[in-house]
Amino acid sequence: MTDFAISAADVHDAARRIERAAVRTPLLEYASLNERVGHRVLVKFEGVQHTGSFKFRGAYNRLSRISEDQKRHGVVAWSSGNHAQGVAAAARLLRIPATIVMPADAPTIKVSNTRSLGAEVVPYDRYTQSREEIATAISVERGAVLVPSFDDPYIIAGQGTAGLEILDQAADAGASIGRVLVCCGGGGLVAGIATAIKDRAPDIAIYSVEPQAFDDTARSLVSGTRETVPADARSICDALMAPSPGALTFPINQALLSGGLTVTDDQVRAAMRFAFQSMKLVVEPGGAVALAAALEGLAPPAEGATVAVISGGNVDPDAYAAILQG
Amino acid sequence: MTDFAISAADVHDAARRIERAAVRTPLLEYASLNERVGHRVLVKFEGVQHTGSFKFRGAYNRLSRISEDQKRHGVVAWSSGNHAQGVAAAARLLRIPATIVMPADAPTIKVSNTRSLGAEVVPYDRYTQSREEIATAISVERGAVLVPSFDDPYIIAGQGTAGLEILDQAADAGASIGRVLVCCGGGGLVAGIATAIKDRAPDIAIYSVEPQAFDDTARSLVSGTRETVPADARSICDALMAPSPGALTFPINQALLSGGLTVTDDQVRAAMRFAFQSMKLVVEPGGAVALAAALEGLAPPAEGATVAVISGGNVDPDAYAAILQG
Repeated sequence: MTDFAISAADVHDAARRIERAAVRTPLLEYASLNERVGHRVLVKFEGVQHTGSFKFRGAYNRLSRISEDQKRHGVVAWSSGNHAQGVAAAARLLRIPATIVMPADAPTIKVSNTRSLGAEVVPYDRYTQSREEIATAISVERGAVLVPSFDDPYIIAGQGTAGLEILDQAADAGASIGRVLVCCGGGGLVAGIATAIKDRAPDIAIYSVEPQAFDDTARSLVSGTRETVPADARSICDALMAPSPGALTFPINQALLSGGLTVTDDQVRAAMRFAFQSMKLVVEPGGAVALAAALEGLAPPAEGATVAVISGGNVDPDAYAAILQG
Repeated sequence: MTDFAISAADVHDAARRIERAAVRTPLLEYASLNERVGHRVLVKFEGVQHTGSFKFRGAYNRLSRISEDQKRHGVVAWSSGNHAQGVAAAARLLRIPATIVMPADAPTIKVSNTRSLGAEVVPYDRYTQSREEIATAISVERGAVLVPSFDDPYIIAGQGTAGLEILDQAADAGASIGRVLVCCGGGGLVAGIATAIKDRAPDIAIYSVEPQAFDDTARSLVSGTRETVPADARSICDALMAPSPGALTFPINQALLSGGLTVTDDQVRAAMRFAFQSMKLVVEPGGAVALAAALEGLAPPAEGATVAVISGGNVDPDAYAAILQG
């Protein structure tokens, strides 16, 4: 009945696959945040996932499907940093050589963490070179499996496991969820979470949240076609700089999301400061967009609690210090 | 059979009392931390407790015992900041006027949070004035109930609820605990946790951890008598600057602890940076001493996992930025 890349069954299958390897991240609640926003907010904190972001979920689900014979040829991925670390960590656990194509201006913490997880890092210029071409060339040359950062059924299903946890943890907390706000770059996380949640609770509204300058999913949801952002777009949200929605993620998001929200870089900075001061969580810029949308009250009103997904916490100390003091 | 200020039954009673008001804080595990230390480490993160530290537990337990008649006379407490906020938050929930005597050099975040919770703040000079005398005078003048920061049975029992959670959460995680490292100022948290844990699991070793310059509990455990630190002692751990062990906490700690560990301010800074980079948690200096001891491998070897209690995350942005960049 559907031609979506994944179904809820795939997310449940991914959950079983990653159960022993991934962290079941906490769903946190703060009186100070509830008071500030005026209703109940639950925060899914993926900063405590392996490698500091949700990306390990999808990467482990994908890499765990690679055959013993394929393993020795390795895997190759491109990533601004979080997918890089997720793939590197999963590859190490599964004893697969990993090569990651990363932008030369990626946060140092992401590059050095990727290297320290044993991956080979190949730098490229984010604004002039094609990471896809570089990674594809490596894949062809070495026979390595290409691991996309979002446009892959196993990746989407793996990220969706966060959605299953949200449902279970909200029930444990006695919370009825009204809406879920999810950070969105290429749309893999929100597509996976929406698939998991809508299957069990179709009345929950799901929103993607993007940086204002990378609002391709928000605009695509309105126009019904995959829009792109200008090549000169810039944002502090280095993790969310995908130029357009994915070929696999967009149809899912088009069918399941209630809309796309956007936040400014200043709203992101304010959310990072709020997370520091009132939540004691280190949140990276791209990880803070859904929290920023919650703090700004950007989603249409709904009965029940709001869930905001904080997708990661990989930020360089200098950049973080500047934002705290800004 | 014992003349201790509290028993395990008091901690269970406190747990029931605070259950609906306090946060059940997560017990977190990181592959990166396990790898760094060489064995399994579980981290109890009290930064996500109300007001950003464990202090709400004891404060709510104590204040919830105040009679309706007494309530209108209010409560008074002295504190470098975390107990202040804990008392202020509990007092607001229970509709009790609160006055807090705080050092003039307490972190701004702690003073402003205490005020924003509705408490009256009375500043004093940490090095020349007696906070006890000022608070006692207010107590006598107003008929207000004095709420000690550690030397009170309800306070100790309330803090001990973190110990009950540790036992339950470690069991859920399939971890067998070998030792528990707990931040120590006046010793209320470690005394409460030790009472809770030793009752159910007498083989678990419990250690207090203090800043090197405020090693009064470590020395007292060796000498068997309540030692004091010199008046000119200084540390970045503003939350742990109690000059001597408590009259009620020390007998408990003397009976139940396996020893007292100490860490340098530089080790504390390194632990705060580790928590930022690899754990994505904002940890204040005093909150980081047990993690620092775990990272430095200071506790004698033991079978099983190490639990490190991170007691709070209330640190000023400028101070935090300086430590990140240090």
